[in-house]
Amino acid sequence: MSSDITLYWGSGSPPCWRAMICLEEKGLSGYTSKLVSFEKKEHKSDEIMKINPRGQVPTFKHGDVVVNESMAICLYLENTFKNQGTKLLPDDPSQQALVLQRFMETQNISEKTGALVYYKFRTKAEDWDQGFIADKTKALAEELPLWEKYLSQYGEGSFITGKDFTLADASLIPALAYLVRMKLPLKERFPHLASYYERVKDRPSVQSAWPPHWKDSPGYDYLKDV
Amino acid sequence: MSSDITLYWGSGSPPCWRAMICLEEKGLSGYTSKLVSFEKKEHKSDEIMKINPRGQVPTFKHGDVVVNESMAICLYLENTFKNQGTKLLPDDPSQQALVLQRFMETQNISEKTGALVYYKFRTKAEDWDQGFIADKTKALAEELPLWEKYLSQYGEGSFITGKDFTLADASLIPALAYLVRMKLPLKERFPHLASYYERVKDRPSVQSAWPPHWKDSPGYDYLKDV
Repeated sequence: MSSDITLYWGSGSPPCWRAMICLEEKGLSGYTSKLVSFEKKEHKSDEIMKINPRGQVPTFKHGDVVVNESMAICLYLENTFKNQGTKLLPDDPSQQALVLQRFMETQNISEKTGALVYYKFRTKAEDWDQGFIADKTKALAEELPLWEKYLSQYGEGSFITGKDFTLADASLIPALAYLVRMKLPLKERFPHLASYYERVKDRPSVQSAWPPHWKDSPGYDYLKDV
Repeated sequence: MSSDITLYWGSGSPPCWRAMICLEEKGLSGYTSKLVSFEKKEHKSDEIMKINPRGQVPTFKHGDVVVNESMAICLYLENTFKNQGTKLLPDDPSQQALVLQRFMETQNISEKTGALVYYKFRTKAEDWDQGFIADKTKALAEELPLWEKYLSQYGEGSFITGKDFTLADASLIPALAYLVRMKLPLKERFPHLASYYERVKDRPSVQSAWPPHWKDSPGYDYLKDV
């Protein structure tokens, strides 16, 4: 079933990672995985541009079906492979609502993280606009307590919407891993999130897509003051 | 069925509008509609903060179920009221994939529009950073031809994924209406999108949520040069 699936992905991209977690959780580990180098601009290759005019990853193909928005890939995989692997979207309407809410809501973390990290990455430290950095740091610092509170409602060992791993976790865990990579002091500031991160990061689906280049490089300290 | 639904919304907010279009399309027009004033900061009222700690709209409640991310509201409504009103997400896997892809992809238009409009709205014209404006204008100008091309694949009179109105249209039409409100020369630059806009804007579900304050105010010319 997974033999007619191809995924183009980039190392360290949370959107790619969330799609890959869903692939693993749905038992589709045999798909064709094509790691592209951002440095060599392989995401702008003819092979990708032909099916994804944005020249971005993830670029996903299942037979003749192409889906390139990571949230859409996750939803598509869950709907298409409903009866195999982990159930990522519960049938119960109120539980489903909660999963959809938290799943979509993870985009807030990604946006706020991205605004700060990309700015620091692209701008020479001596040119940093401290007012801009203060604003963006505040936005991220106000985002994370929401998640800390969501998690604190459930018992130790739970996932972000309760006892089961869902689409919301597939999207949250790469976002958290990215924060840790950027040296956000998760453990000191957000103990529930830190404990969740420690627990979920070793899940096979999460490990299988762990960014290869993270294993032998230290990351940046862009978020140490959040 | 709609009597236990409440939606808090703001006039002119595309995320609110897309949720409202889905409510109408699913035959739920009898819901409790609470228009909040951004000017009076009613979106930060206790009533909303209690169920939506972000203090944002849309804030949606169906019985005890709360969903506040607009894309999640749309998906929830379609899944929960599957067999009534317009079918917004097709069952056929390849058609469903296309709808999910385009639905999520509309966020690109919103983000690129927002980056430009909010900057111009919040910054005095004499302080405008022309380099920043040029970058953001270019990003939006590169986004819209993708949609023009998507639409050109289908015959005259079609929707964004083919012959049926779907979630993707519910999300696209407010984004286009916002562009028009900001004086983007849609007709001159993107004839397929302009024709789509003219056709879909009069759909009852779209009209029912047309921002009230747009009816007697002219908008801004922030996008006239895109």
